[in-house]
Amino acid sequence: MSEGMISPERIVSAAVLIIGNEILSGRTQDANLAYIAKGLNEVGVSLREARVIPDAADTIVEALNELRTKFDYVFTTGGIGPTHDDITLECVARAFGVPCSLHPEAHDLLKEWYKERPGQLNAARLRMATAPEGSTLIVNPISGAPGFRIGNVFVMAGIPRVMQSMFDHVKNALAGGRPSVSRSVRCDLPEGTIAKGFEEIQNRFPECELGSYPWQKDGQFGTSLVVRGRNPESVNSATQQIIHMVSSLGGNPREE
Amino acid sequence: MSEGMISPERIVSAAVLIIGNEILSGRTQDANLAYIAKGLNEVGVSLREARVIPDAADTIVEALNELRTKFDYVFTTGGIGPTHDDITLECVARAFGVPCSLHPEAHDLLKEWYKERPGQLNAARLRMATAPEGSTLIVNPISGAPGFRIGNVFVMAGIPRVMQSMFDHVKNALAGGRPSVSRSVRCDLPEGTIAKGFEEIQNRFPECELGSYPWQKDGQFGTSLVVRGRNPESVNSATQQIIHMVSSLGGNPREE
Repeated sequence: MSEGMISPERIVSAAVLIIGNEILSGRTQDANLAYIAKGLNEVGVSLREARVIPDAADTIVEALNELRTKFDYVFTTGGIGPTHDDITLECVARAFGVPCSLHPEAHDLLKEWYKERPGQLNAARLRMATAPEGSTLIVNPISGAPGFRIGNVFVMAGIPRVMQSMFDHVKNALAGGRPSVSRSVRCDLPEGTIAKGFEEIQNRFPECELGSYPWQKDGQFGTSLVVRGRNPESVNSATQQIIHMVSSLGGNPREE
Repeated sequence: MSEGMISPERIVSAAVLIIGNEILSGRTQDANLAYIAKGLNEVGVSLREARVIPDAADTIVEALNELRTKFDYVFTTGGIGPTHDDITLECVARAFGVPCSLHPEAHDLLKEWYKERPGQLNAARLRMATAPEGSTLIVNPISGAPGFRIGNVFVMAGIPRVMQSMFDHVKNALAGGRPSVSRSVRCDLPEGTIAKGFEEIQNRFPECELGSYPWQKDGQFGTSLVVRGRNPESVNSATQQIIHMVSSLGGNPREE
């Protein structure tokens, strides 16, 4: 599945599509986005959008077609189980304009799985071996039923432990650019005090992203100043200037 | 800000737009979506989409214009502080095609705030009193700098404690429809075993949404079966049928 190296200067982009009524009702707190975000960054892929949508066929098809055209990779989570509300694979097939049919390799895998475990490969579970034509498997050592890849779309489970094992499996085969690095300086000054100097540093390092995040802990408050970029030298220089700026304003900077 | 009652049959829809590089880099785990989702449901507003996007002006303007046209309400979080990466209010103004200027009421509020507290109302902090023309304030008892409402868009802070106080302030003035209610049955059967009966119940209650969520705890595993809908009688009847179905399959259902 390796796609070879691409130019380290090109930014490789991705989107995450989180499919599930339970996230939009507030019943379940999503735990997948941050995991995927960190993992993509490690392999030089830049996550540019995440979208949470309900288990509604037209919405899934439309969002998927928009995102897969706009970004290099799309990772979906949720909706690939055996129950009637698991409609992701049918929708992915519709989005790609291909039929959804029994995937022989997935079928074999599930036959093996249920041979050694309780439960039968009944009609409901057989749905988990149905996939868009042209897909390849993403193995699932946790609970058997696989994920699938078709084109630039990776269809994964919603349960965090299962999603993580699927994502870890595909992550290193992605064709990424140069990973971005980040450094973070914590200080005891409020945002409003450092804002001017911080913007001046941003202007000197347009190739970096400088972000400020206020914190409050045990009655203390302050700001974390984060530098992120693909050029480690720029990131280091900007960080030095931030440390100097904070000190000169009477603050107490320390790297975190 | 009350908008009177609307027909209880109409579904009032909303989207959340989460603005912030820190969420897409995985540095920060979003904690606002689930809070807003639950609160909206209480007042009969149905959350239909959430989108996470970077602090990038064109992306913010485009997403906001898409979502505010598509849904009854849009709630944004993040990007309203005093630093250069806080660009949400300028982008909201651009999306609405209005200027962004000093908001007299917000200005008075910040003058009062810094009279009694450390820090000065310098140029950076004054940005937090700048808002799209035609906005009304959303008060912020936690840290002073207000949120704003313009049209059907509510612009709120990203820090969860501040966002929560802003959201609680506006929530009850929303014109919602009939709130949906939900019941949940936990059982010790796997999804693949209940899938067929569960779908049959879904078909008998098309006005309800039936969702199944596998769980695993201390070596035990099973499924939570959730019924959600606006008609409490249908929700109760569907729940009774689920309990009966689980028992007849040899499972041990209990409401959670």
